Order: sequence, then structure tokens, then C-alpha cells
Amino acid sequence: MQQIVDFILELDKLKAVTRKTRPLGQDRYENSAEHSWQIALLAASLAPHAEVPVDIHRVVAMLLVHDIGEIDTGDTLVYVEGGWAERKADELAAVQRIFGLLPVAQAEAYLALWHEFEAGETAESRFANAADRAMPVLLNLANNGQSWRENGISHARVVARVAPQIEAGCPALWRYLEARLDEAQQRGWFGA
Amino acid sequence: MQQIVDFILELDKLKAVTRKTRPLGQDRYENSAEHSWQIALLAASLAPHAEVPVDIHRVVAMLLVHDIGEIDTGDTLVYVEGGWAERKADELAAVQRIFGLLPVAQAEAYLALWHEFEAGETAESRFANAADRAMPVLLNLANNGQSWRENGISHARVVARVAPQIEAGCPALWRYLEARLDEAQQRGWFGA
Repeated sequence: MQQIVDFILELDKLKAVTRKTRPLGQDRYENSAEHSWQIALLAASLAPHAEVPVDIHRVVAMLLVHDIGEIDTGDTLVYVEGGWAERKADELAAVQRIFGLLPVAQAEAYLALWHEFEAGETAESRFANAADRAMPVLLNLANNGQSWRENGISHARVVARVAPQIEAGCPALWRYLEARLDEAQQRGWFGA
Repeated sequence: MQQIVDFILELDKLKAVTRKTRPLGQDRYENSAEHSWQIALLAASLAPHAEVPVDIHRVVAMLLVHDIGEIDTGDTLVYVEGGWAERKADELAAVQRIFGLLPVAQAEAYLALWHEFEAGETAESRFANAADRAMPVLLNLANNGQSWRENGISHARVVARVAPQIEAGCPALWRYLEARLDEAQQRGWFGA
């Protein structure tokens, strides 16, 4: 029992890892813990629109654990250029440390979910990645492009970094977003 | 698609609903969105210790949606005396409004999970309730009794409000917590 308690208290640190998007109507930045909750519900709600039928429970489980490595590494804006291989290696070391607090069977189960999400080779991981990429886009579309403008991100850079993943996992969501992103460009909601 | 987007953006408001516990090492209060993420992982990690075998996926789904009504009602400290029937009626009206943003099949599925959690009659809902009650206790035990002292909550009141639920869903966790709560009392971590 103490191992599980140590793990859960370690997770509290994800509440202090800030992202670049602000919750609607708030001045602060959102953190990776509340983001993980929201994308789990985005995926669960979107399930009927997955590109192929998916085991939504495994999708949700993946989304709940996929950002835990940021406890050691922090969050990196998805639009940053380069350095991703090293960043992912650091995140892997982090999740090995953190999941390693648990009894070995549970640690291995979470680590397998983490690897599946990162590899993006299963239908479930493609759908999970689509939800993860789509959520900050949805917030920015509701927020006049707040994090795009604050970080000088262009319409082309957003599309390049989110379209392949969202389209692969949830084509209907990409069709919806593509039109909204075009409107956002006309409104001047992008940087650069 | 627009219905799902409207629902997910409405959920952003749960990031602004504050509870009485502070994340470890932070001055601010935690919010109900990050709390929902953490208890989902507490339950998933604790699953081998459930009182009877449970469908952990349904437990996780319940925990992800069970606090959404607080968007309209706010969070109430579990140790508050009285008024719970009215509070729960308000929460029901809230989740009917919020889930009602979704296509009807999804709305009904979430509403069923919400009712199941509140009724506490299935093994899954008993286990989910155990995780929900245990999490702030675990944080307070790691936090020198921060929210108990700030709100004048006695050892007896904590035990009365969490022991039945935790013991019913996860007896091993209650045995662990009972001993820690006794130690906390000796250290003077309670109010009143």
C-alpha cells in the first residue's frame, strides 16, 4: 500500500507543470494534470468518431498517464522545432522512475501504455494522440488564439504539427478543425 | 461535432472550481479537474486491493465525470454538516444541463455513470467512492493536516465521514489510513 501512496503523492507534482494554454476565462496557465483529465473526456466523448473502432478504455488509460514524465522534464510546446528525440528519452527515464515507485506489475502496465501512446502504431494510440493534439487547438479557437499569439506560432506551423495526427486518429475532428483554423487565420489569431 | 466541442469547452470551467486542499508544495488550492485526474489514477493503481474484483474501466469513467456538476454548484467540503440532499439535487440539475450539451446517447451514458457513483450500490461505485474520499486524506497526511487545520475539522469528524466509504470499497486502504490518522492525531494535525 505504501508504494501506491508514494506514487500518488508523486503525481501531485504534475499539478505544478504548466502548459502554454490558459483555461478559458482565467489568467493562469493550465497544468498538465487538468489537461490530462480533459483529453480523457474529449476522447471518451469523441469515440464514435474514431477513424476505426477503438477500445476506448485503453485510450483513456493512455491519456491519463502519457504526460506523467513531465514531472521531471516539464512541458514543451508542441510547435517547438527540433530536440524531440532527446526530450522523449528524458521523458522515458522520468516515467521509468515514477512508475517504478509502484509494484512491478502495475509499473509495467503503465509503462506499456506510455510506450503505446508514444509509438502511435495502434488504432488506440492514434486516437489518443488525436485528442491530445486537438485539445489546445480547441482552447485556442475559443480564446482568440491566445497561445499562438503569445508564442508567435503561425497558421502553417499549427497545421503542420497537428493535422497529420488528428486526421489519422479522428478524421471528422480534423475536417471540423481545418475550417475553424482557416477562420482563425482570417481573424488574425496567429503569430509570426 | 459541434456538440462535443461545446461540451469539452464547458468542462474547462471545472479547472476554476477550487477545493480546500492545496497541492503539495503549492500555495494555491487544487481544482476539481486535476483532482478528478488524480483519483482516476489512484483507483487504477489500487485496483488489486478492491474489496471485490471490479471493472476498473467503469470506475475510472465514473471518477472522471463525478465532479462535473460542481461547474454550477462549486465544491463543498465533505466534512460540512447537513444540506447534502439539496446539494446533490443541485448537482444533478447541473450534470443534466452539462451532459445535455452532448448527443443524447453520450449524455445518457455519462448521466448513468454519475447516478451509479452517487448511489454507491455497485462494487464499482463503492470502490470509486473509496478513492474519492481517500485522496484528500492522503494529501492532508502529506501536508501536516493543512485543510483539517484550516477548516477546524476534528479527527473524529474525518473518521466519521471517510471510514465507512473507504472501508466498504477498499478495506486494505482503510487499514493503512486508520493507523496514519492516529499518528496524525498525536501530532496535532486536526482542528477543533
